[in-house]
Amino acid sequence: MCGTDNDSTAAPAPHPASKANLPSSSPYSQVQDYLSNTQRYQIIESTLREGEQFANAFFTREHKVKIATMLSEFGCQYIELTSPVSSQASYDDCKYICSLGLKAKILTHVRCNMEDAKRAVECGVDGVDLVIGTSSFLREYSHGNALEVIEYVKSKGVEVRFSSEDSFRSDLVDILALYQAVDKAGVNRVGIADTVGGATPRMVYDLVRTLRGVVGCDIECHFHDDTGCSVANAVTALEGGATHVDTSVLGIGERNGITPLGALMARMVVSAPEYTKATFDLPRLKDIEEYVASVVEINIPFNNPVTGFCAFTHKAGIHAKAILANPSTYEIIDPALFGLTRYVNITSRITGWNAVKGRITQLGLDGPGGFETDAQIKEVTAKIKQLADIRPLAIDDADSIIHAYHLQLTGNGKQQETAA
Amino acid sequence: MCGTDNDSTAAPAPHPASKANLPSSSPYSQVQDYLSNTQRYQIIESTLREGEQFANAFFTREHKVKIATMLSEFGCQYIELTSPVSSQASYDDCKYICSLGLKAKILTHVRCNMEDAKRAVECGVDGVDLVIGTSSFLREYSHGNALEVIEYVKSKGVEVRFSSEDSFRSDLVDILALYQAVDKAGVNRVGIADTVGGATPRMVYDLVRTLRGVVGCDIECHFHDDTGCSVANAVTALEGGATHVDTSVLGIGERNGITPLGALMARMVVSAPEYTKATFDLPRLKDIEEYVASVVEINIPFNNPVTGFCAFTHKAGIHAKAILANPSTYEIIDPALFGLTRYVNITSRITGWNAVKGRITQLGLDGPGGFETDAQIKEVTAKIKQLADIRPLAIDDADSIIHAYHLQLTGNGKQQETAA
Repeated sequence: MCGTDNDSTAAPAPHPASKANLPSSSPYSQVQDYLSNTQRYQIIESTLREGEQFANAFFTREHKVKIATMLSEFGCQYIELTSPVSSQASYDDCKYICSLGLKAKILTHVRCNMEDAKRAVECGVDGVDLVIGTSSFLREYSHGNALEVIEYVKSKGVEVRFSSEDSFRSDLVDILALYQAVDKAGVNRVGIADTVGGATPRMVYDLVRTLRGVVGCDIECHFHDDTGCSVANAVTALEGGATHVDTSVLGIGERNGITPLGALMARMVVSAPEYTKATFDLPRLKDIEEYVASVVEINIPFNNPVTGFCAFTHKAGIHAKAILANPSTYEIIDPALFGLTRYVNITSRITGWNAVKGRITQLGLDGPGGFETDAQIKEVTAKIKQLADIRPLAIDDADSIIHAYHLQLTGNGKQQETAA
Repeated sequence: MCGTDNDSTAAPAPHPASKANLPSSSPYSQVQDYLSNTQRYQIIESTLREGEQFANAFFTREHKVKIATMLSEFGCQYIELTSPVSSQASYDDCKYICSLGLKAKILTHVRCNMEDAKRAVECGVDGVDLVIGTSSFLREYSHGNALEVIEYVKSKGVEVRFSSEDSFRSDLVDILALYQAVDKAGVNRVGIADTVGGATPRMVYDLVRTLRGVVGCDIECHFHDDTGCSVANAVTALEGGATHVDTSVLGIGERNGITPLGALMARMVVSAPEYTKATFDLPRLKDIEEYVASVVEINIPFNNPVTGFCAFTHKAGIHAKAILANPSTYEIIDPALFGLTRYVNITSRITGWNAVKGRITQLGLDGPGGFETDAQIKEVTAKIKQLADIRPLAIDDADSIIHAYHLQLTGNGKQQETAA
């Protein structure tokens, strides 16, 4: 038994994007998951459909084209658009985006009736996402309409997905029977939707695993975030055998939205690092989020995974010390994967002297004639903490204290003038 | 088999805070969970400890007292404070808050050594949360220090929790052996910490369930949100037998923080409605979040569960229609539980005529001499959608269109002047 993987005295370990540096009996190392598709999941990016249902969303054609293009270049396999039946602009823009020849396949999301399906196919989409309402699905299905619509879309050489709303409050027997029937009819995917955002991961796992045993087609999942579980539900669905996850940029959608693309990337770069890095151009994420945020006039949440302003900021003494020795100690994600950098905060009352030591090295004030002993660094740390007890400090404030102390050490009057 | 629970033709069902209105074979109705503590969980509120590690946090005594008081009145069972060893102000403020006689028990979080433990006990806390670092825990334990410290804290009649950091990257055998030993030594709780935020719900369930079989004491869980799973991991831990969850207001903490108190309330009011409503004063949540947000100078994220500005906003036609007939169709949480209201958006290109009908009723423009037929409502809806295709509309814009149309119907010149 050799203890843990992050002994701070060891040489910096590789960033734990791979699980290679975990002890063999760590809870992170799971039993083989034969159902899991975490290593080959696909994204159905719905900023231009679900996201258009966000309270603040008003997308012009210019916005739509730019968003679709960015998402396609990012590596999203599918882009879903608002139903062309919604309005004339929705129809025209859908048609236009289909004509752009983007790498991503273009989908539109329509009610499961012949009129809507025909309008969708007219636009030239690569796939039609059919949805039936909660209350009506048995009725619609029993009318035989659904099979007729599926048949029609397939006959046009267009992909078809079939989904009901509110899968987690529907009768399980009904869902399974319905999806088995549409699977036999040849749909490409069936969809599970947590329309009200009430599902927990264990519910998701049970439902998806059960469905996986009943249908042969792909399984798409759509999770709302009303109870804060949309990212965890998505990864758990993939573990249970789902193949496709619906996302939107920053999660924008009805109410507080769905699984955010960026947060899912944060999750999947940990759960499936090789596939995720190879498939998605992660350094583009920040620009995509910033563009969409500006269009819908929101701020990127302070706590957004990866791109929130403090996602890679380390503050407590014990954390800062370890991060300086070995980033993987307190970071599960390497910020460089997303083209970002970390920041170690040394300006608070919980600052430790190791973080200050790191800053002193950054400033080039260590070594002969400067900070030579740990005792000196501890003394200047105490000065910083003393001031931080009284008022909030900026990094400049801490630097000034360090510089002032350094001048005492060197006793150099000329340097004092420069620093002042 | 009678289909789903949300037939829009039925009378409004009770809001699904209880699971009573689910079909018996719904995926929401789980098998009996004998390990689950979702119906009796307790909150360890760490805004004043973990939250102080947030990049923007600088709490004065006044802030700390107000936050502790609000959280105690909200119903949090424990409030955790920064180690009194961190700085003089931390020590003084800890002592002061302990003297206030709040209903919540006061904890402080210190390194597992005798010096820190003594300072903590000096402050008059109700409990000491001992933590040992990842890399050092075997060493510290083998020195026998941990047991000595536990012994000391217990001898002072103070609660004691023992936790290691980074539980999910530690060796499982080591953790279980260590926790079994401290359980025998009489700790009140052991703590599982996902310090880097990399755990998934299934990892959490496996680890907590295993630990539950090994220790008799309570189990506290602490989840970081780097990969967006902190809320789901918390509820899954409770399902697996954990008893206490660490939270902070809005999730503030190191990097992008931990399980947010508000999001966890959203989750638990669905998972354990009766207990959650009886235990926590939910309508206070919004004020608490707004106060903390103002102190640390952040905006409440647009997508925050419950209190995000659009958490109860409904926009798509199909959603708005159903919400007006029966709110539970598209809401898993009744906003009234948190003292909030819903808002149905009728100002977009995806607006449906049922939502406009609802607005017309709110404006009192329906009935004889006004909007009398669905055809009229559909026509005015088309006018709204037409304008919404061209530019973003405010609710005033839609109201103006409705009023103008209404005037045509009534042909009343005097009303026209009033409306203009």
